[in-house]
Amino acid sequence: MKVSALLTSAGINIGLCVLLLSLYSVLRKQPANVSVYFGQKLARENIKRNEFICLKRLVPSPSWILKALETSEDEILEIGGLDAVVFLRILVFSIRIFSIAAIICVLLVLPLNYYGKEMRHKYIPSESLDVFTISNVKEGSKWLWVHCLALYIITCSACVLLYFEYNKIAKMRLAHITGSPANPSHFSIVVRSIPWSSEESYSDSVRRFFTNYHASSYLTHQMVYRSGTIKKLMNDTEKTYSVLSHRSSGSLDQNCRPSILRRITCGGATNFSHLLPNQLMHVLEKFILSCVDFCIRKKECAAAFVFFKTRYAAVVVSQVLQSSNPMLWVTDLAPEPHDVYWSNLWIPYWQLWFRRIAILFAAILFMFLFLVPVTFVQGLSQLEQLQQMFPFLKGILRKTFVSQLVTGYLPSVILQLFLYLVPPTMMLFSAVEGSISRSGRKRSACCKVLYFTIWNVFFVNLLSGSIISQLNAISRPKDIPMQLAKAVPRQATFFITYVLTSGWTSLSSEIMQLYALVSNWFNKFILGKKEDPSYSALSFPYHTEVPKVLLFGLLGFTCSVLAPLILPFLLVYFLLGYVVYRNQIVNVYVSKYETGGQIWPIVHNTTIFSLVLTQIIALGVFGIKHSPIASGFTIPLLICTLLFNEYCRKRFGPIFKMFSAEVLIEMDRQDEKCGRTEEIHRQLLSAYCQFSLTLNDLLCKDDDSNHSGDANCMHYPEDMKPGEESTQMSEPWTASKD
Amino acid sequence: MKVSALLTSAGINIGLCVLLLSLYSVLRKQPANVSVYFGQKLARENIKRNEFICLKRLVPSPSWILKALETSEDEILEIGGLDAVVFLRILVFSIRIFSIAAIICVLLVLPLNYYGKEMRHKYIPSESLDVFTISNVKEGSKWLWVHCLALYIITCSACVLLYFEYNKIAKMRLAHITGSPANPSHFSIVVRSIPWSSEESYSDSVRRFFTNYHASSYLTHQMVYRSGTIKKLMNDTEKTYSVLSHRSSGSLDQNCRPSILRRITCGGATNFSHLLPNQLMHVLEKFILSCVDFCIRKKECAAAFVFFKTRYAAVVVSQVLQSSNPMLWVTDLAPEPHDVYWSNLWIPYWQLWFRRIAILFAAILFMFLFLVPVTFVQGLSQLEQLQQMFPFLKGILRKTFVSQLVTGYLPSVILQLFLYLVPPTMMLFSAVEGSISRSGRKRSACCKVLYFTIWNVFFVNLLSGSIISQLNAISRPKDIPMQLAKAVPRQATFFITYVLTSGWTSLSSEIMQLYALVSNWFNKFILGKKEDPSYSALSFPYHTEVPKVLLFGLLGFTCSVLAPLILPFLLVYFLLGYVVYRNQIVNVYVSKYETGGQIWPIVHNTTIFSLVLTQIIALGVFGIKHSPIASGFTIPLLICTLLFNEYCRKRFGPIFKMFSAEVLIEMDRQDEKCGRTEEIHRQLLSAYCQFSLTLNDLLCKDDDSNHSGDANCMHYPEDMKPGEESTQMSEPWTASKD
Repeated sequence: MKVSALLTSAGINIGLCVLLLSLYSVLRKQPANVSVYFGQKLARENIKRNEFICLKRLVPSPSWILKALETSEDEILEIGGLDAVVFLRILVFSIRIFSIAAIICVLLVLPLNYYGKEMRHKYIPSESLDVFTISNVKEGSKWLWVHCLALYIITCSACVLLYFEYNKIAKMRLAHITGSPANPSHFSIVVRSIPWSSEESYSDSVRRFFTNYHASSYLTHQMVYRSGTIKKLMNDTEKTYSVLSHRSSGSLDQNCRPSILRRITCGGATNFSHLLPNQLMHVLEKFILSCVDFCIRKKECAAAFVFFKTRYAAVVVSQVLQSSNPMLWVTDLAPEPHDVYWSNLWIPYWQLWFRRIAILFAAILFMFLFLVPVTFVQGLSQLEQLQQMFPFLKGILRKTFVSQLVTGYLPSVILQLFLYLVPPTMMLFSAVEGSISRSGRKRSACCKVLYFTIWNVFFVNLLSGSIISQLNAISRPKDIPMQLAKAVPRQATFFITYVLTSGWTSLSSEIMQLYALVSNWFNKFILGKKEDPSYSALSFPYHTEVPKVLLFGLLGFTCSVLAPLILPFLLVYFLLGYVVYRNQIVNVYVSKYETGGQIWPIVHNTTIFSLVLTQIIALGVFGIKHSPIASGFTIPLLICTLLFNEYCRKRFGPIFKMFSAEVLIEMDRQDEKCGRTEEIHRQLLSAYCQFSLTLNDLLCKDDDSNHSGDANCMHYPEDMKPGEESTQMSEPWTASKD
Repeated sequence: MKVSALLTSAGINIGLCVLLLSLYSVLRKQPANVSVYFGQKLARENIKRNEFICLKRLVPSPSWILKALETSEDEILEIGGLDAVVFLRILVFSIRIFSIAAIICVLLVLPLNYYGKEMRHKYIPSESLDVFTISNVKEGSKWLWVHCLALYIITCSACVLLYFEYNKIAKMRLAHITGSPANPSHFSIVVRSIPWSSEESYSDSVRRFFTNYHASSYLTHQMVYRSGTIKKLMNDTEKTYSVLSHRSSGSLDQNCRPSILRRITCGGATNFSHLLPNQLMHVLEKFILSCVDFCIRKKECAAAFVFFKTRYAAVVVSQVLQSSNPMLWVTDLAPEPHDVYWSNLWIPYWQLWFRRIAILFAAILFMFLFLVPVTFVQGLSQLEQLQQMFPFLKGILRKTFVSQLVTGYLPSVILQLFLYLVPPTMMLFSAVEGSISRSGRKRSACCKVLYFTIWNVFFVNLLSGSIISQLNAISRPKDIPMQLAKAVPRQATFFITYVLTSGWTSLSSEIMQLYALVSNWFNKFILGKKEDPSYSALSFPYHTEVPKVLLFGLLGFTCSVLAPLILPFLLVYFLLGYVVYRNQIVNVYVSKYETGGQIWPIVHNTTIFSLVLTQIIALGVFGIKHSPIASGFTIPLLICTLLFNEYCRKRFGPIFKMFSAEVLIEMDRQDEKCGRTEEIHRQLLSAYCQFSLTLNDLLCKDDDSNHSGDANCMHYPEDMKPGEESTQMSEPWTASKD
């Protein structure tokens, strides 16, 4: 590929980006699109809608960029939660490190590569891109120490930046935990694998066990039910009730039904007899109640939420082995109420490890099967092969522009389209795997997508081609550095175009929200539906965006010293991404649940992996170029990077996995001092509710789940608090009717 | 190697074994050797010594075998602790599985191998041993399914036996924990990395932290001191005191000194003024006390033992992250008092991970450097190469007997001699690594020796030869099954002789206790020393014996289907081992500390590794022999074995790492009910003592430590209990003198 082809590609992409961003700046001003572009604001407040058409609304303006940049970190923390802040820190980190890398590499390494061989240089636009890579440096060159020095500077600054980021995020996480209002998940644990006994129900077992061993801190518990059966049962009940009540009294307010049932199934001592018009309804209600009670008892799962009086007690019980059979009474800290993935809670515990292993195999299989489209993409970038395969294309491909388009643009577009299939698949895998929280599922999917992307975009493109040659490559680990060293400069061109197309364009399409825009228009103008006021905005797709950003980081690190031409393009990507994602977090996405920055360890590990990979490739390159000194200096760097990682793992890792006793006890004391404890315990009883009961609630969409039906959960409004007796809470359906 | 050479080797070894065992049966009857052969009994009771020489004492008899076999498991549990029982279970397991394997393989596989090719069989003694291996089966043979079936039977019975053993040992461990008398280590934790503050001493920090956060369960604590300085200080004090007291009163009982100092440094409110003859001594004593107090305060380490009121509280504190900086207030369950490795306690916590990594590298380096002797051994078993290297040997080597001796016997003897160096080195590595308990150090050394042995005895012998060819082998993982498949039948001969020499002979030398015997004689008859009544017996060398037994297990599994001739020899080894080790545990070794069977997970994992390796090698062999059906059936077996391991890891693993809340709380309640709590707390205060003070104590040997000087610890007799005030205990040297 020549410089001119690269410029063509860059031109197309810059044009496309400017076009889309301008279009966005116009579209966002249209009142019809408020629900697409301001879901977050809609969810928080009623924004004014200016329905008058004025000229200003039709002129593109960069004001949104300024607005996005003006938002402070505290505001983002408030709007998008800690996870959003951490995500933006990834971009900040990338911008910083690649600014340094770009300065070093463009000023030092690029000229060295360009004048690396004694050759007659052509006019730059018709120069091949290979001239700018390290492959242009002649073997045994004395100037390779510059590359080694650049590697040292990049690695060291990356490690320093990583350390400060990790430190900062760990502090933010602690502040977030201590600063936020009492979180029910801190007081609750999930118990699974409750032993079955023929003498007592699961609920009784739980009560007996915890009153026996943790009497001083145990508050109450709440069973988990097999959702399918219960849902059916409740629907039937609701239907019967509706028919009967309709017959007995046509005047009964229709809106009451859902709330009655809600009270029945989630318990509580609320007196709702005033809702019933006559004696018949009383009898009916009693009958239904006893039916529900009887059936639900039978459908209890071997899992429960157990609530404790203090945070510290909950953490202690969740971390200490409970039973001398480790497969029984398995305890974990509970996820936040909105974060619970109910349909996975009733999976028998023994299935979990089996599922995990099965999913591991499935994911690996999926990774290798995905090679088919990638191989095709490879074929496109090697034009000669394509012409041999499809001779009729020769005529078209001879035209310069078409050939440049095909080699420079098409491959990554095709790859991109196929990559869109990956996140939903991985999300499905993670759901089957048995994660009990939505955030856990997303994090697990994030890792899977990350491994997948790194393997399929980076390694497969490098090691070029078919399954067999890949397996050969894996089976000779010693040769891998050499192979990579040969391949990276060769494939640098592809990576640059990948950054241009996949990177830049994906940002534009991210901000355009094409799918939501089109479906909104379709609903409004073709189906003529009115805008839904309870429109539920999407939550941020960490599982697709984090791997994307990390992949570009990997490309940046590995190419930095070898093919520094990629760095300016990458820097533009990160800068644009910073603005775009800020804007999206502030305006579009709603944060429904929080992990408290638990994605950062993934980011840290991936960055260390990228650095180590870069060093290994550099080792290979220095080997090929016969520079023993440069190779020799790279090895200590490699070891130091690994040691640094080990240190960070020890220093910061546990903070992201556990809560510390010190912090929790202080928080408990603070609550005690302010007299909030009672209030917290009361709220706790109604925090987790497995079934949402109105049909509306059932239909209310959950963005990242196909299982939205049985996975919805919501807080009760204040006036619907269930009874305060702890024993009643544990069997919520035996509602007292005074 | 021919059958006759094997028989020569076997003959030599059987003769040697019978000779040594007979010699043992005579030597053990000599009163002079009581301290060598009955250390265990000496330590427990005063056995009668029959000094009269009678004929019976000079006649070899097998009575010791009967005695060893008669001892019941309960007696062994009492004498040697759970670890000894678990060690014997390894042998029982091996005997069982290899009995099954021997029956299957000798009856089914061996004839098949022998008649595998159409060839004229020679007279059996001059038949090559290769005829009995799978390499004699012709390619594409239809009978390979028998090998596959044998593999299935062996794997399945191994898994079933493993499961039952794991289950049994887990139950025994639980019974051991609940059944044994109150163990101070259950109530104590080790805190390391106490943050330094200029305002208060470490001791004050610890008290403040634990009274703040764990007030309800915190009992007291005890600091750890930098041992070198304190020891010097105490020696100086003792010397000064001795000189002064000698001057002031020649009549002062010399035996009092140590006990005075012991009281000074380990605290307590004992009135010892009656020991002092005059006023001068009072002044002197005050002066020394204040000196010691002042200096010791400055030498406090950032580590302490903290004692709790209940077992559950100790476990909770040890498992929950204490500080929001995971590098501070690091808590672990304390080892048993005898098990504490004091000199490692004062290692700064941040050094630990660094030391661990350094030791990892050092161990790997050591493993590869060890190749030099192994390569030499390899050369010996290939006689032709040796003759080429040393032409002058040709004459000698032509003699049949010498050649058989050299090929069949010498290689493994040389290997064996070099292998004797390994355990001390690994023990040193493990000590440097920073383990805080002697048992932990031994377990860590055990793992290192195990990896080392498996690599250097098994793999290096198989992959034959120099470092470079080994590295080549590692760098082509795909080819490893093929390489192993070719090598195992070829090297089976070497492994058989290895079992004969290393296995059988090592058992004989184990029972003879040559080193102790010779040094005992030397002391008695040449130096003319009297027998030391406080002779400290050795503790069982798990770190050398466990890897040895496991290595033979590995050899047995891998050779079973391919070269079944090894199995009878192996079975003899395990049977003999069972008797010998039983005898040694009952008579010789003293168990000073307990891990509660924590070696079993190592055994389990190694056995699973052996099984998987066997299957991989079988896969390779079936591949070479062109038997796709047998290969196809081996793969599901491999997957099932791994799944089984995963299950066991989940089911039993945690039991060996943690104590369960259920068990601990029940134990605490039992103590409460019986009113033992007070008594336990009182004992707890004096359980851990860093410094033993009489010179005698200092010189008292510790078998497995070169650091015995600064690592000794002992219980106090009843009359020397220090003060019962908890605050006094934490600063034991501020002895009150009323």
